[in-house]
This record gives sequence, C-alpha cells and structure tokens, in this order.
Amino acid sequence: MSSSVVQTKSERTRAIIRDVALRSFRERGYDQTTIRLIAHEAGVSVGTTNYHFASKNDLVQELYLDVQQSHRAAAVPLLADSDDLVDRLGIVFRTGVAQLEPYHRYAPEFLSAAVSPRSSINPLSGESAESRDIVVGLFRDAIEGSSDKLPAEFRDDLPDALMLAHLLLALFWVYDSSAGQVRTRRLLDRGLRLLKLSLPLVRSRLLRRPLRELLDLIAEVKA
Amino acid sequence: MSSSVVQTKSERTRAIIRDVALRSFRERGYDQTTIRLIAHEAGVSVGTTNYHFASKNDLVQELYLDVQQSHRAAAVPLLADSDDLVDRLGIVFRTGVAQLEPYHRYAPEFLSAAVSPRSSINPLSGESAESRDIVVGLFRDAIEGSSDKLPAEFRDDLPDALMLAHLLLALFWVYDSSAGQVRTRRLLDRGLRLLKLSLPLVRSRLLRRPLRELLDLIAEVKA
Repeated sequence: MSSSVVQTKSERTRAIIRDVALRSFRERGYDQTTIRLIAHEAGVSVGTTNYHFASKNDLVQELYLDVQQSHRAAAVPLLADSDDLVDRLGIVFRTGVAQLEPYHRYAPEFLSAAVSPRSSINPLSGESAESRDIVVGLFRDAIEGSSDKLPAEFRDDLPDALMLAHLLLALFWVYDSSAGQVRTRRLLDRGLRLLKLSLPLVRSRLLRRPLRELLDLIAEVKA
Repeated sequence: MSSSVVQTKSERTRAIIRDVALRSFRERGYDQTTIRLIAHEAGVSVGTTNYHFASKNDLVQELYLDVQQSHRAAAVPLLADSDDLVDRLGIVFRTGVAQLEPYHRYAPEFLSAAVSPRSSINPLSGESAESRDIVVGLFRDAIEGSSDKLPAEFRDDLPDALMLAHLLLALFWVYDSSAGQVRTRRLLDRGLRLLKLSLPLVRSRLLRRPLRELLDLIAEVKA
C-alpha cells in the first residue's frame, strides 16, 4: 500500500523501494532479502536505496507498519458491530493473526532476527514503537467501546498486557505447523472462553487478592 | 563437570573438547565460539573436534545438559526440606534461573540461535529432549513429593506446563537488564504468590469451568 499523496520524485522512489522490499519479505523471507536485490528490482542503485533506508531492518519497520495498518483497517469495521468486551478483544486478536498469514513460511527467520532484546526490529524496541502503538491502541479501543465496565485498575493496564499476550500468541503461531495454523485459532478461542468465564469473577471477594497479584505481575512484566 | 569415569583416550579427548567448548560459551558467548577456536584451545585438530561433535550446536547440547544436571544437583537437596507444593515449585524455578546467571551477558545470542522452531538447539526440539526431561522430571518430583494433593487431571499435565512456564521465565530473564536480574526473581515471587492464593480455589465450584478451560488451553499449547 503506497502513500496516496506521493509527490516528489524522491518520495516516489522511496515508495517503490518500500513496495519492492515488502514483496520480497513476503516472497523470499528475511534472510534472502538483501539491499542489493531490492535496489536491483526497484531499478535504483544501492546508494539510492541506502539513502532512503539505512538498513534492511529499516525496511522491516515499514513491513511492521504495513501489517499493523492492515490490522487496524480489518479490525475497526468489525468492532462497530459488537459491544461485548470479549467479542471485541477476539476481533483484535483474530484480525491481528490474520495479517501474519502470508509470512508463516518465513516466520522462523523473522523471529530469529527480531527476538534479541538488542535487535532494532524487536517488537518491544524503541524503533518498533509506531507499529506497536497501533496494536495497543486497538486493544484500548476494544475495551473503551465495550459495554462491560472494568475496574479502573484493569482498564489502564490491560491494553499493554493484551499487546504482550498478542506477541505470545504470535510466538505460538510461529511454532504452529498445523494446517492453516488452526491450532493457533483454537488456542485463541480457548483463551477468550477462559476470559469470558473469568470476567464475572473480577469483582468476587474470593478473587480480589489473586487478581491484585496478577495485575502486579503484569505490571512487573511491562516495566 | 567431566565424566568421572573417563577411560579411553578417545573419551578423554571428547571430555577435553567439551570442557573447552563450555568455557568458551560462558566467556565468549555463542556467536564468537567456533569449532576452529575450540580445536585450537583443546590442542586437537578441527577434524578430531568434528569427529566428536559434528557441529557447534552439538556442543550447545552438552552445555544444556551441564546446566540442567547442575540444576538438578542444586534443587534436589533443597526439595528434601519442604513438602509445601508452592515452596517446592519455587525451589525448582529459582535453582533453574540461578544456573543461567553466568550466561546473561550472551543470552540474546543464544536466544537468537535457539528460538527458531527449526533450530536443533531449540529447547523444545527432539535434540534437546534429554536436558528438557531433567526439568520436567524436577517439576514432577516437586509435585509428587508435596503434601498438597492435586486433582489427577492437574497432576498429569502440570510438569510439562511448568517446564513451558520455566522457558517463558527464562525468556523474560534474557530481556531483564535490572541489576542481578532482580526483576526476574520478583516476577517469579509474584507468580508463586498468585499460585499460592489460587490453589485453595482449585476445588471451588465457581472456578471449575474456568480451570477446565485453562487445562485444555495448556494441553493445546503442549500438543
């Protein structure tokens, strides 16, 4: 998806390089995509490519943005149809996993390149903030637009916790070799059912202390 | 730790190569350790090294075994002192994390090399079964030697689920840049406290369905 208001020649060149790179990531994966190959296919020099994108990982950030913009475009219309909290969270998770599908074949390569906390394409890195914020924002919208009102302490911490849960689900998906990754969808369905059964208990006195502990634990992971 | 009954010259050579490799992993990390370097430091040829260990990743398996044998050696005496289930699980988790400490500096390298489901040093790979089984066995011992009796459905699924939890804790630890990885220990303490508060609820009617869902979800992850 190129920008709709491409103006200067430089911007056009940048958009071409970006589109070529995104197609290459999808068709060749991470390891086999090189700046040299992208330059060749975009019909520009390696120098021009490097002028627009200093490294392959800068182009992976374009891929992340593209994936999460598609995620938002897929989730938002569906969110308009439900005010049930768990349904709404399910929409965000399901449309998120759906965006990843074209990349499953090469997912182990992307995972190896991105998993190190020192990697600029780590989903939790500063460089990845823009695409990560789209996911956090979608979970926040899912919660705020729901008719189920959560205690404030939950509401504030939940979007970040759900973004982490989404990353763990994506990790499971990388490992999922079932046809069409049906096990990932089953795991998600079970997780949502568990959440649905647990939500009415949020205010139960019996569970007040365990839930407080769970929130503190999530805050610890986020910190 | 070399084998205590080193007999033939070939076995002695193998033990030397192994010890040199383990020291190199600790001191240089994964990326900078090469078969060539190990051969040089062991005073043998590259061919001899390759005869005993076909690849660097075979030596990582020796490292995994060494770490988990030390884990068992540290956990077993402590387990003799408590029959409280959560205390016993805490012992297995804490002694497990303690074994990793010397490797924290290079942990991102090991993580990148091991995280792909196609990697032979992935902790869930067939090649890693021997060291993984030590961890599962420790969790099984912790459960079976406890005075808290769990419903059978929990008892059977729990060791594998706890091994996965231990891997997720290790993942958190790789990302933990706090001094002495104190946040990992705090996260573990919180998780154990949550478990302690939740255990009495295992038989509550209110929670029967959510817990059944949780078990099914864990079974799905394991499958």
